[in-house]
Amino acid sequence: MKPTDRTLAGHLPAVAPGDTVRLCGHVHRRRELATVTFLVVRDRTGLAQVVIKAADGQEAPPEETPVEVVGIATANPQAPGGVEVTSPVVTALSDPALTPPVELWRPELAAGLPTLLDHAPVTWRHPRVRARGEIAAASLRGFRATLDSVGFTEVHSPKIVESATESGANVFAIDYFGRPAYLAQSPQFYKQQLVGVFERVYEVGPVFRAEPHDTVRHLAEYVSLDVELGFIRDHRDVLGLLRDVLAGMRAGIATYAADAVSRLQLELPVVPPEIPVIHFAEALELVGAPADEPDLAPEHERALGAWARETYASDFLAVEGYPMRKRPFYTHPWSRQARPPGEGSNSFDLLFRGLELVTGGQRLHRLPDYEEAIRARGEEPAAYASYLQAFAHGMPPHGGFALGLERWVARLVEAANIREVTLFPRDLHRLTP
Amino acid sequence: MKPTDRTLAGHLPAVAPGDTVRLCGHVHRRRELATVTFLVVRDRTGLAQVVIKAADGQEAPPEETPVEVVGIATANPQAPGGVEVTSPVVTALSDPALTPPVELWRPELAAGLPTLLDHAPVTWRHPRVRARGEIAAASLRGFRATLDSVGFTEVHSPKIVESATESGANVFAIDYFGRPAYLAQSPQFYKQQLVGVFERVYEVGPVFRAEPHDTVRHLAEYVSLDVELGFIRDHRDVLGLLRDVLAGMRAGIATYAADAVSRLQLELPVVPPEIPVIHFAEALELVGAPADEPDLAPEHERALGAWARETYASDFLAVEGYPMRKRPFYTHPWSRQARPPGEGSNSFDLLFRGLELVTGGQRLHRLPDYEEAIRARGEEPAAYASYLQAFAHGMPPHGGFALGLERWVARLVEAANIREVTLFPRDLHRLTP
Repeated sequence: MKPTDRTLAGHLPAVAPGDTVRLCGHVHRRRELATVTFLVVRDRTGLAQVVIKAADGQEAPPEETPVEVVGIATANPQAPGGVEVTSPVVTALSDPALTPPVELWRPELAAGLPTLLDHAPVTWRHPRVRARGEIAAASLRGFRATLDSVGFTEVHSPKIVESATESGANVFAIDYFGRPAYLAQSPQFYKQQLVGVFERVYEVGPVFRAEPHDTVRHLAEYVSLDVELGFIRDHRDVLGLLRDVLAGMRAGIATYAADAVSRLQLELPVVPPEIPVIHFAEALELVGAPADEPDLAPEHERALGAWARETYASDFLAVEGYPMRKRPFYTHPWSRQARPPGEGSNSFDLLFRGLELVTGGQRLHRLPDYEEAIRARGEEPAAYASYLQAFAHGMPPHGGFALGLERWVARLVEAANIREVTLFPRDLHRLTP
Repeated sequence: MKPTDRTLAGHLPAVAPGDTVRLCGHVHRRRELATVTFLVVRDRTGLAQVVIKAADGQEAPPEETPVEVVGIATANPQAPGGVEVTSPVVTALSDPALTPPVELWRPELAAGLPTLLDHAPVTWRHPRVRARGEIAAASLRGFRATLDSVGFTEVHSPKIVESATESGANVFAIDYFGRPAYLAQSPQFYKQQLVGVFERVYEVGPVFRAEPHDTVRHLAEYVSLDVELGFIRDHRDVLGLLRDVLAGMRAGIATYAADAVSRLQLELPVVPPEIPVIHFAEALELVGAPADEPDLAPEHERALGAWARETYASDFLAVEGYPMRKRPFYTHPWSRQARPPGEGSNSFDLLFRGLELVTGGQRLHRLPDYEEAIRARGEEPAAYASYLQAFAHGMPPHGGFALGLERWVARLVEAANIREVTLFPRDLHRLTP
């Protein structure tokens, strides 16, 4: 009688009326009317309506209680998907759940961000909030599928590192068996070294920034999507790959998170066949900034985003040729013929809807260039011995990029604060849940 | 004349003789004979032989130098794959490479483990060493594909946590903006909480263990493959899923790392349609250990592995029903009818070739059970408030498992030391490269 196979809520509309089904999920909504109780059951695929009549002799557990419901699939044009479950036997799978801090059954969560974050294990259950996590996961599927298909190898580099050499600032110190060590700010040094091994590598993993600033864009820990590849001509090859990766991420969402997209009523960005590129110097001119500005301010990025939208109908714009002094020491200087050498670097930022999403470019690959760049910072190459051995033993021209997963999702869903799309954010103030 | 498309070494055998090709790679081997120099070029797909004659007027850069070679594909039954490159133009893409600390062109690396690890960015270039990384990556593809196909969502939980509550020992302390915090030993608490959100989740990410022991099996940082799912009956459902995941990982390797498998002359394990299971009490009896032993010693695991091999022709054996006192506090007690309650737990270890590879099981899901278990440890539930809110607000019966990626690869390639299959290992003594 009781079917062993479970029917997922999302599959209920396809069940033949009259069939017995077994639903498993949380009570999303309990609505007790005079003669009937409606129980909406939520599982990972959607919502299903269960109708309990007095004659059924069933208790309706409170919202969020996990339940099993065995009953009859019954056509009802009023029910979601046109099929509901009647004559149910409802079994609570745990104790009656405590009332959630926010009503999860409402279309929108009516609570401020601190409340939502304090109760993240519960508030993330809301279908529209959960959708953000589904979009993040589908983005990763698209990211990896794109890179796997062109010969990349996934790697995992250590997050505990000996020195804070990469940037020297904003690192978390740890006690490593009585010695000082640090949390890696990025897998940059490792992914470069591994180009010598695998030629094309990517890593998806946490990076750590002891950001002393409290902004809507920064986290102390986030998921970085890192890519690095060898035998490139210059940063434009990296940008070409980035274009394909973004298209793949978009396709991943459209394919694997279609339901989340419709729950959020999102319009996914179109990734153009070629991402428009503007040189840093031209970008400054375009936004009316002084020619000696070393970087783009957020308002400049917004203006450039609007310009790309108007001029190219593109949500994406790459700015190349940033001044060397604003880029990390391993950045390759400008080498394309369109401009004289000595002007800027073979690096780029990718703006997505007017906000920096990706930083990338070509790296130095010759040992003497590294030694010179490190000395120019007033440091000794010996402090980088472990990193530099890859270059001493032969490294090809290479480059790559890094993309913050949370930032990508935040821009997609137009979240005002990056914490809205981070399962359990870490920042200056927040260390739980 | 010079083709813009690159020919990969592994594709050279398919090129029509007489065609011009462009290879990019590192000089793997330079062999200078009286009248001819053989240059073996290595790229991510394999090795290609280049023949330089005096008349070609070409320099042959030293081993490990990255090069571009443009030449003619020429049939030669003696060459690897039957095709070599003649009349080449060889261009070094960087300075001549320093001689590697170990000869990478030899079939086997002739050096001790400390030398190999000190020079990891170079020694990993060896084709048989690189193969281990390719197998790890292909395993992950299989892992994710299996779980993606049955409704799992990939998640990323924070690695910086507020308290060391999960086990209380062997954690790394960090300075978090002036406050104490810790590196997560596992995503256990988070993946459980997220079952309430996504129902089925997995995470691939680093975990940190301040292991004060120096063994061939332990690392201070490793990649954990974590899975958790809701609405299970008991741990046997988890074990069934684990079986499919292992089969998927094996298939991933066979499909995506076939060349690495043949480079290492590996025999991949057969994953049986059902993994044989033995109860802990029976396992003790079988190996002749006293009935009150709380755990299996390594020699017991080896004996059980041999027994499974003989009895079931299986490389895998699950041992279920471990005593509660050796399992973490969130473990669900034994509930299957085959044995009386109070005997052991709904948990298992999976032995792979006689070595523990996976730990898994059913977890508690009722809040009162957690409160009791925490008090039984002499602690206060309030210390776990953030974790426990998920249970207060309704959690289904659930369970999962964790599998160490490096351990899996180590057993597959029969590495004597787990460091051999870890790109940049971290342990009591090692913090670089």
